[in-house]
Amino acid sequence: METGLFIGRFQPFHNGHLKSITNVSTELDELVIGVGSADSSHTSENPFTAGERIRMIDKSLELNETNVYIVPIVDIERNSVWVGHVESLCPRFDTVYTNNNLVNRLFKESGYNLENHKKVRRDEFSGTEVRRRIVEDENWKELVPEEVSKHINRIDGVQRLKMISD
Amino acid sequence: METGLFIGRFQPFHNGHLKSITNVSTELDELVIGVGSADSSHTSENPFTAGERIRMIDKSLELNETNVYIVPIVDIERNSVWVGHVESLCPRFDTVYTNNNLVNRLFKESGYNLENHKKVRRDEFSGTEVRRRIVEDENWKELVPEEVSKHINRIDGVQRLKMISD
Amino acid sequence: METGLFIGRFQPFHNGHLKSITNVSTELDELVIGVGSADSSHTSENPFTAGERIRMIDKSLELNETNVYIVPIVDIERNSVWVGHVESLCPRFDTVYTNNNLVNRLFKESGYNLENHKKVRRDEFSGTEVRRRIVEDENWKELVPEEVSKHINRIDGVQRLKMISD
Amino acid sequence: METGLFIGRFQPFHNGHLKSITNVSTELDELVIGVGSADSSHTSENPFTAGERIRMIDKSLELNETNVYIVPIVDIERNSVWVGHVESLCPRFDTVYTNNNLVNRLFKESGYNLENHKKVRRDEFSGTEVRRRIVEDENWKELVPEEVSKHINRIDGVQRLKMISD
Amino acid sequence: METGLFIGRFQPFHNGHLKSITNVSTELDELVIGVGSADSSHTSENPFTAGERIRMIDKSLELNETNVYIVPIVDIERNSVWVGHVESLCPRFDTVYTNNNLVNRLFKESGYNLENHKKVRRDEFSGTEVRRRIVEDENWKELVPEEVSKHINRIDGVQRLKMISD
Amino acid sequence: METGLFIGRFQPFHNGHLKSITNVSTELDELVIGVGSADSSHTSENPFTAGERIRMIDKSLELNETNVYIVPIVDIERNSVWVGHVESLCPRFDTVYTNNNLVNRLFKESGYNLENHKKVRRDEFSGTEVRRRIVEDENWKELVPEEVSKHINRIDGVQRLKMISD
Repeated sequence: METGLFIGRFQPFHNGHLKSITNVSTELDELVIGVGSADSSHTSENPFTAGERIRMIDKSLELNETNVYIVPIVDIERNSVWVGHVESLCPRFDTVYTNNNLVNRLFKESGYNLENHKKVRRDEFSGTEVRRRIVEDENWKELVPEEVSKHINRIDGVQRLKMISD
Repeated sequence: METGLFIGRFQPFHNGHLKSITNVSTELDELVIGVGSADSSHTSENPFTAGERIRMIDKSLELNETNVYIVPIVDIERNSVWVGHVESLCPRFDTVYTNNNLVNRLFKESGYNLENHKKVRRDEFSGTEVRRRIVEDENWKELVPEEVSKHINRIDGVQRLKMISD
Repeated sequence: METGLFIGRFQPFHNGHLKSITNVSTELDELVIGVGSADSSHTSENPFTAGERIRMIDKSLELNETNVYIVPIVDIERNSVWVGHVESLCPRFDTVYTNNNLVNRLFKESGYNLENHKKVRRDEFSGTEVRRRIVEDENWKELVPEEVSKHINRIDGVQRLKMISD
Repeated sequence: METGLFIGRFQPFHNGHLKSITNVSTELDELVIGVGSADSSHTSENPFTAGERIRMIDKSLELNETNVYIVPIVDIERNSVWVGHVESLCPRFDTVYTNNNLVNRLFKESGYNLENHKKVRRDEFSGTEVRRRIVEDENWKELVPEEVSKHINRIDGVQRLKMISD
Repeated sequence: METGLFIGRFQPFHNGHLKSITNVSTELDELVIGVGSADSSHTSENPFTAGERIRMIDKSLELNETNVYIVPIVDIERNSVWVGHVESLCPRFDTVYTNNNLVNRLFKESGYNLENHKKVRRDEFSGTEVRRRIVEDENWKELVPEEVSKHINRIDGVQRLKMISD
Repeated sequence: METGLFIGRFQPFHNGHLKSITNVSTELDELVIGVGSADSSHTSENPFTAGERIRMIDKSLELNETNVYIVPIVDIERNSVWVGHVESLCPRFDTVYTNNNLVNRLFKESGYNLENHKKVRRDEFSGTEVRRRIVEDENWKELVPEEVSKHINRIDGVQRLKMISD
């Protein structure tokens, strides 16, 4: 059985995440989605709580053949123990998927096999771009799954993001 | 849509948990299982990591009609903000199921509707009893789902528990 | 100008505290009341929040000639820096009043002048005794200022204490 | 009885704070002054300890008809539980006065009534401006109550601020 | 080159520690002495600060052929990341010497080679026994190196321990 | 007996540190080298762990007449208690050597004697410059003791620094 770990902050979950996860899932029996900076919310970089992000991911994914775990990872201010922290919170995994250089290095120094998932249309499909469009009233809904935009509306997320970005 | 929160430490997940959760799930569209003391492990009270407990729960549950989220809740040493902490890590929930008096009180003071799930054969179906039997080489496997005993064997859990309980 | 520091947990503020503070205040221009374990609440040892304790103290004291500061002191898990922690949170003080041996030792090693306030009728006038009587429905109101018992009723404190002590 | 909460960092307490507080106090029976970032000091943004700031505020205020609580609020690195944190440290309050957008949003999401106090001559009456003038030897004393400038001198605050800003 | 790690709390450093360390040092080019619970002091279990303990060890050891590092290890409340924490604070080591079952288990799950050092006259040569004798005015000096008893006197350690144990 | 404290981050230990320490050691019986930000690693500012830095320092120093302690100092996010934190982790010291203004101010407010060590060829002998040269493949080895460059190679430090600086 092959289990992969896909790490991200998902602020918010967007079409780039969805495509990458759908791609990597084809090689995996199980996929652990680690929701990073889980204790951050209500900032311009991290507007949504872990609970809100978990729901966005769960409602958007449709992976019939892969068992999915969505696990919030609260920050720990120690790079040297971060891998051990993630390992203790997640079901055991074999492979790590990330584009983040630091995450990549830390798992590599701990002996993990790393697979860099290729990002799809990286310039548009970024959380930064989604948040910028939300704040500036541009078309952000085309960048995220429909369930995400519905959830952001339900929690008054547009107003929240505008207010704290001011 | 009705969402319930079921809080426990699941050290380990046992047949009492399984029956209670199966019972309450019949009234719910969604169930959030909060895995408490998620940052504790390798102690006689909390032998298993959050990741190990998440897998035990996931492998043992078979709830076809209810959407389940399993969410690790790291401890926060402040009762006065604990409910807010849980709310931020979990998808939004309507009802709380717990037998713990403190958890009960904290959610009640925050205005939640609480439903005390009736424990099944409480004296036997307790984590304390399972851990005691493991340490003393008595029959503990009859108290837990088969997937739990298999997972505990896979991670050398019996030896771990005996060693740290010494 | 002479400023004194009086340290306690005030769970709850009782007649012993009131008499001691009234006594020491006669020698002081200013009195800082440090409310210890300010981040603890909803436990059988520390049932009330810092905010609730601050209000109990403020409503019960009537010191016309002494300027009073009531300052919550959150716990810091390091005895070696605890005095510096208290100094940074409180207006500067000259003398320390305490019956606690550890607090006494820590301030003494930091060079402070210490005055042990004599406790009045110590056996009855203790927070432990007040909490015990509350839980066991004995007469606790005679041990505390009237404003304290009124405040405890207002916040449903008797029920809270009974529930979390169970 | 109406109780208001006025939140600020007060680095240092200046004439703008004094006027705003004097204004809002006319509508209130009780006023809680929350001294934010109470655990920060000796930085160019937060030069003064909570204890020093509490004394500056206490010596400068003269509100005869309103009962005042000055409460240090240590930082908690979790926006999602920050309101609960403040609630646990302060006597219960009805209304919140703040110009800070994040504070405003967090209290609003928790269901509070918010009143934005109008700042008086905001450009000059800001802590940033006072600190800049201190470092650059310009006239800062005209921006703060006399008791504040006397206290800053007493603690050698000008030298401290210059040194840590270098 | 062979490097060993010897973990203890050294409250205080006693003749049992000295003999064990002298023994294991004969097999080692380098020895790292990890001073555990380095952030604890002024309690009956942990009376001495890390700095005081480092000096006691340094003054008592005479290992001419082995390079010694004495490293304070502050506590981290997470067993699952404790080994990574120790690894990040200490020079790289090959072997671990400990009598503590939990420490043993944690290093073993991380893949380390463990050598249990045999304790010498364990019943007498224990920190608990030394502290008990100090508090009860029995002969404790025979249990510790001369430099340790001199250092404890210099810092008024007997009085400190009696006072906080009261 | 005169003991000095020399505080730095040593990211990495370079020839400037070596010369300064050699200089000040001539006046001292004992020297405590405090390795600051000991819990930081794997960042572009703090690439090396405390353990790696301790080894670099130990292998590079040759002070025959001065007793040296190398002590990792984990960060504590409170300037007001930082001196007490350092005091508790280090053997007692009389004098402090630092070029950092904040460190200087904090020790001065605590009553210490401070000696500013003169930096040697400061522009080149800085950790920032060493790290910049490593990342940009310029000649960095001439700025550090030979044992440091050997240790950085052994731990694959060049690749680590390039990767996390990207």
